[in-house]
Order: sequence, then structure tokens, then C-alpha cells
Amino acid sequence: MSGGLVVTGCDVLSIPAEGECEILRAHDIVVADGRIQEVRPTGGAHPNDAAEVIDGRGLLAVPGLVNAHTHSPMVLMRGAAEDVTVEGWFNERVWPMESNLTPDDVQTGALLACAEMIRSGVTTFADHYFFPEQIAEAVAETGLRADIAPTYFSSHGQEALEATVRFAETRHGTAGGRVTVSLGPHAPYTVDDEDLRTLSGHARRLGLRLHIHAAEHLEQTESSLARRGATPIRVLHETGVLEAGALIAHGCGIVEQDLPLLAEYASTTAVACCPKVYLKHALSPLTPVRDLLDAGVTVAVGTDGAAGHNTLDVWEALRLVALTQKQAVRDATWMTVSDTLRLATRGGARALGLQDRIGALEPGMRADIVLTDLSGSHCRPLHDPRAALVYSARASDVRTVVVDGRVLMRDGRLLTVDEPALLAEADSRVARILDTSHGRVVQHYDP
Amino acid sequence: MSGGLVVTGCDVLSIPAEGECEILRAHDIVVADGRIQEVRPTGGAHPNDAAEVIDGRGLLAVPGLVNAHTHSPMVLMRGAAEDVTVEGWFNERVWPMESNLTPDDVQTGALLACAEMIRSGVTTFADHYFFPEQIAEAVAETGLRADIAPTYFSSHGQEALEATVRFAETRHGTAGGRVTVSLGPHAPYTVDDEDLRTLSGHARRLGLRLHIHAAEHLEQTESSLARRGATPIRVLHETGVLEAGALIAHGCGIVEQDLPLLAEYASTTAVACCPKVYLKHALSPLTPVRDLLDAGVTVAVGTDGAAGHNTLDVWEALRLVALTQKQAVRDATWMTVSDTLRLATRGGARALGLQDRIGALEPGMRADIVLTDLSGSHCRPLHDPRAALVYSARASDVRTVVVDGRVLMRDGRLLTVDEPALLAEADSRVARILDTSHGRVVQHYDP
Repeated sequence: MSGGLVVTGCDVLSIPAEGECEILRAHDIVVADGRIQEVRPTGGAHPNDAAEVIDGRGLLAVPGLVNAHTHSPMVLMRGAAEDVTVEGWFNERVWPMESNLTPDDVQTGALLACAEMIRSGVTTFADHYFFPEQIAEAVAETGLRADIAPTYFSSHGQEALEATVRFAETRHGTAGGRVTVSLGPHAPYTVDDEDLRTLSGHARRLGLRLHIHAAEHLEQTESSLARRGATPIRVLHETGVLEAGALIAHGCGIVEQDLPLLAEYASTTAVACCPKVYLKHALSPLTPVRDLLDAGVTVAVGTDGAAGHNTLDVWEALRLVALTQKQAVRDATWMTVSDTLRLATRGGARALGLQDRIGALEPGMRADIVLTDLSGSHCRPLHDPRAALVYSARASDVRTVVVDGRVLMRDGRLLTVDEPALLAEADSRVARILDTSHGRVVQHYDP
Repeated sequence: MSGGLVVTGCDVLSIPAEGECEILRAHDIVVADGRIQEVRPTGGAHPNDAAEVIDGRGLLAVPGLVNAHTHSPMVLMRGAAEDVTVEGWFNERVWPMESNLTPDDVQTGALLACAEMIRSGVTTFADHYFFPEQIAEAVAETGLRADIAPTYFSSHGQEALEATVRFAETRHGTAGGRVTVSLGPHAPYTVDDEDLRTLSGHARRLGLRLHIHAAEHLEQTESSLARRGATPIRVLHETGVLEAGALIAHGCGIVEQDLPLLAEYASTTAVACCPKVYLKHALSPLTPVRDLLDAGVTVAVGTDGAAGHNTLDVWEALRLVALTQKQAVRDATWMTVSDTLRLATRGGARALGLQDRIGALEPGMRADIVLTDLSGSHCRPLHDPRAALVYSARASDVRTVVVDGRVLMRDGRLLTVDEPALLAEADSRVARILDTSHGRVVQHYDP
């Protein structure tokens, strides 16, 4: 038996598929071959004397969080595009800066993003970016789990489309199964219908999904209706994207007529909600989470890229989902603590088609375990650890992180990333990346 | 010269009264007698060889944050009232629990709150609660700065009113000037006009302000208009509260007709905005911050009590002010990074009438200095430290805290609080405080 690991004496957050989360007091989590074998009251004999032991006493084990939509290498542009309109953000800041990126930049950015996510207890992320090979390398190296969608614009041409398909064919299921691939048409307003149909066909052929921005805000939906008489979601329907299975980023512009279309493919359709960027970009309304859940569509929590969100902190994101969704439907009793925790774990797992592998600390699941320390004064008295996770805890309360049975951070020390060297490497690349004097862009934003 | 202190080699956040914040690189902050003497480029001789030296290299000094509205002892009920309506929160959970509180409970709660605030870089707070003597003791002991308003309901009778006035007469200006007092009528819907007039008179006589909940949400304003033909703000005007000077908590229900009334007393009127609790209680609209600032009224940032806000973290609160205010007025270019930082520092100082003492790191100001460490992966690359403070940093990035020239936390270690003993003491009181089987309440909520 390889990869043996036992976390002893921790409390365990149990997140059922429905209903209230529960805290199992003083349990052991027994891991073998990267998989959870048993979650049981502490004190029994360990199944394997040679197993690595983590003393979990005083800590709460939670399933690794899933960041269901991000552009991880954009950490390189964190804080470099503030207080601007959405149009200014794309056309004046981000798309010009992105035209500077080299494959090495992207690998450095992805590694830095992985370090930040490990530190904050994110064990799986759905990425959408250029130079996906370099992201896959960073994921393989750091030990995280990721679904990687290579970003595709129709303006980049057929060779680029074929390259994304080759990436999917060669990389899906690598890194011991930790790397999966989705196809990544950017959005219905940057990818034409023919390309969407072609990519949907490849996705069906390969048994993969598509990860795509759509109906990002209501103006996009209105613009799509005006230009072509169909909502962005209907375009996804007509081009086979929904049929293949889609992880839809944002969806703030999903309207009533879209719901039956999404419901038809609910088992393979998900929407990732990233509220911090919606607020920051002054968007209203937000993702219609209640309507989506009522329609049976999976909802998950994401951070988007750090050029807009400024962190890859899913604790921050899930708290904002709870807060903004309560306000959005004017119901303080809705989007409960338990439901919020479920979105960021089981919801994220479903959104990536990984619900049989991750999203809960249960026998048979891959061992993606985050040990949190809720003993700080900002969480005390600790009346309800579940409420503390949603409303009081910080990413810095994460102590130890295990992915696929491997310890990636132990008591605050990263084991798979040379963080000082990485930060210095990132700093050395910054001036060139921020220089937009050349006037190039990766794309023009005009949805 | 006593209290000599030099912070050497730090970067300093300069927050002007208007315009962009700036970062002064590699400066020394020279402190004498609890006051900032000089902020100057590092490298000069220290004025006093005996002074305490803090090596600030690699850290960013920011003015201590001001929590402009809280009920500090409510940390004892953190996480004990989740996913309930506003009415349920007051009538089923919080006001029954508060009827259990003893003076010793309140002192324990206030000490725990002080520990949390020191850890997160809050150096001044505006408190509003019962048993104010015990809060003043906690503030004196821990070294923080606070303006304390003793909560008063008319239902508690004239003896209670007189006790709040005696507290003001005896405690204002104590603890070396760190404790100031405001009078604390709870709200226009729980304090009658006669009591409001009496308290306004005492405030004018004593040269103090009033700290009061008013127009907490739009339904309260509508209810006040229906019941008595006047908005809550007009009631404050008619009862002399605005004339005496008022720190108004929340003000989400401030309407257009209120703005001229507030503008008339703008120099001594402020509104504390605590957006996390508005979202959590599913309220809309939020504090009309743009209208208030346009009318010349001071706006500050608060956390409210931790029974609703779950933390006393002003970083979290100021970030939510920026995010929610951008969305509220549908303008992503508004509530900029610089303006947000100003609200939480200079704005808070003005809100408490302390603008000549605190709110900026400038010669002549009291030495309330917070050293933050923005070197963590979640803030890197550090393109713009100002943006990092608003959108990336966490309370846990605070390393060292100085109030009135005294070091209260050094490199993460609290120097004025025995935190383990305090946490154990708080835990020992919890079961009794949460027991609401007796059916008592401090007040009934029906605004």
C-alpha cells in the first residue's frame, strides 16, 4: 500500500448532498493510495504502521475547496487594473498586458497561483488560459488538481483551434489523473458559431466538456438579442455546447427564457459564480443562483482571474456568494451556511464532472483534505464551526493541505513550491508585462 | 521625553485629505510622548538614543484603522444567529441572549474584541453597548482607543438615562485621553422624543456627540413616515440630535429629503457604513454613500457587532464598502482605492470628532501605527500596495500595532492581553449566554 496517510483526532466537516452540514468530532481520516479509506472515531489501531501521521487534534478537516473558474496566471497582473470600467479593464489594461506574456511568464504565474491556492485550501481549480501546457506543468509540479481549458478566440485562427484539441487529446488524465481538460472557447462574442460547433463536436468525441464565458452580464444578453435574436445561452444550445456539457462562467445575464435550455442538460451543465468581480465591475444583476438551483443546474464558486478579483481566495468568494445572494433575493434565510459550503465543494466537483472523485470527505473519494485552525480570536467563541468557515475564517487559518493523499502544505510550510525563489522570479518579469506602450492586444472587447 | 519610539525603514501610506494616496518609500516614523514627531526618509540619526526601535523594513505603515460602529462585547454571540430574518435575529436570538449578560461577561467580551481588533490593525473603535464601565476598563487595560456610547432604551427608564449621563461625565477623556464618550440613545424607534431631547441637551452641555442607530433600512424610514409623518433623520433634527452632533449607524434608509438636514450639520455629522450586515440581512438599498459625501457628510466604515458581522475586521468592511458602493451606483471608477482607504482612516477619525488626533501618519498626530506585511503570495507581485490593502490583504497580514506610541502587538504577539486565558474565560461563559429558554429580552424589535 503506497501513499498511506492518517489524519488523527481532527473534527471533520461532513457535507451531505442535501441538508445540514455536520461536524464529526474527534475522527481519524485514513488514506491509502491517495484515496480516503475510512473516516471513523479516533482511537482505533492504524491500518498501516508505516503510514504518515498528521496530528489533527484541534483542527477541522474540510474537503478541499474548488475554484470553479479562474485564469490562474493573471496573478501576474494583480492590482494593475483598478477603478476602471469593464471596457477599460479589457481594452486599456488586461488585453494589452496579456499580449506581452510568454510561455515562461505563464508558467511562473501559474506556479505562483498554485502557491496561493495551496495556502488558502483550494485543492482543485478550473483554469481557462493561454499556454495551457505550462499550466499543466505547474499543476503536475505543485501537486494540485486542475481542469485546464485552453483559451480560444476565433481571431486566432484554425491552427490555434487545432492546438487546443491536441492539448485535450494529450493532456487529459495526466499527472496521475489530477489534470483534466475542457475545451475553452472564450465566449459566444469572441468565437463564431462554426468554431463553437467544431469544438462541441470534439468535446463529444473526446468525452470532455467545454468551459466558456457566457451571459457575463445582462448587457451582453441584450446585445446578443439585438444582434442575432438569441441569448448567449441559446447560442450555446444551438451550437451543441450545452449538449456536450458546459461549465459556464458568470451567467449574470442568464434570463428566464434560458432556464429551460439549461435545465434540459442540467446533469452536465454548471455555472460558476464569482461575485467579487461583479461588484468590482459595478454589475447588476448577479448570477441568478436561486433560479439555476431551482432548475437543477449546478452552481459553483470561482474567483475569476486575480487581475479582477485580486486574490484566488475561495473562502472570500464563497462568503460573497452567501452575502450577495441573500441580498439579491431579499431573503436572509436563504443561501444558508450549509448550502454555501456545499456550493464550494460538492458544487465545484460537479461543475468539473469530478463528483465521484472529490467534493466530500467520504470513503472512496480522492484524499483532498484541508485542515483549518479555528482557534484564533476572530473565530471565538466557536459556537458553530460551519458559520465560522463561511463568515469568520480567513485563508490564513488553513494549516495543512493534502491533495490525492500527498501533503502539499504542512503546518503553513509549502512542500512542493520554492516560494521565495518563485516570488523573486515573478517580480523580475513584472515591468515587461505591465508595459502596454506597444499598443498590441490579444483581442478587442465589444460584446 | 517619554514614550520614545522610532519605526525605521518602513514604507508609509500617506493619505491626504483629498486626492490619491501615496507610498513614501523607506521612511522613519519618529514618535515622542505618544505623538508622531516626524516622518522622514530613513537613515538620519535618531533623536533619542534611548528610544524603542522597531525595524520596519519590508513593511508598510498605515494609519490605525477606525471601526466607526460596533458593539464589541457581542463577539460572545459570534455565529450564534445565522440564516434568520432581521426580526428573528433581534427577537428570537440576540435580544434574548443579551438579557443574560452580566457586567463580567461584557468585560470579557470587550477584552476579546480588543484582542481581535489589535490583531487586525484596528486602533480605534466607536462602541455602543450596555455596561460601558466594563468596556472602558477593557480599553484602558488593552491600550486601544475607543469612543464609548452607553446604549439607552426609553423602556429602561430615567435612572438608566441618568446613569449614561454620569458615565459621560466621569469617563470622557480618561485612560490618558484614549477613552472618549458619546451619548447612546439606541434609535428613534426605541427612544422617545423627550429622551432624545434630554440627551441632546446633555450632549451640548458636555460638548459630546450622540451615537445612534437611525434609518437603518428603508422600511424603517417608511414606517416612521407612516407612524408620525417624519423620517428618522428628521426626528433627529427635531429633537436636537443633529445640532448636538451625531454619529449615525447605517443610514441605509436615508432618503433625498434627509440630505439637506444632514448637510446643515455636516461638520459634526457622520454615517457609519457596515455593508456586511446589510447584505447578510438581505437589505437593499445600502447606505447612500455618494449622496452623503456629495452633501459634505462624513462617511466612515464599521463592522457592527460580531453577532451579525462575525468579525471585527475593518479590512473586510472597507473592501465591502468599495465593492458594494461601486455596484450600488453602477460606476466601477468610483469609490476608488484611495477614497476607500480614506474612509476607513480619516473618515473614521472625523466621525468620532478625533480628526485632529488620528487618521493619518503625520507630525502632530497621536502615534496609532499599523505595520502590515504585504509580502505573502496572495499580494504578489505587489504592483500597487494601495490596491493590495483594499483588495488582497488580510487582517492576518498585520504584524505590529502601536497606539498612542505604545506597542500593543509586536510581530504578531499581543503584549497587553493574555489571549489564551481570555479565550478560556470566554468559552466558560458561553453556554449560559446562549440559553434563551427563560423567555426574557432586553427589548422588542418593531421599528
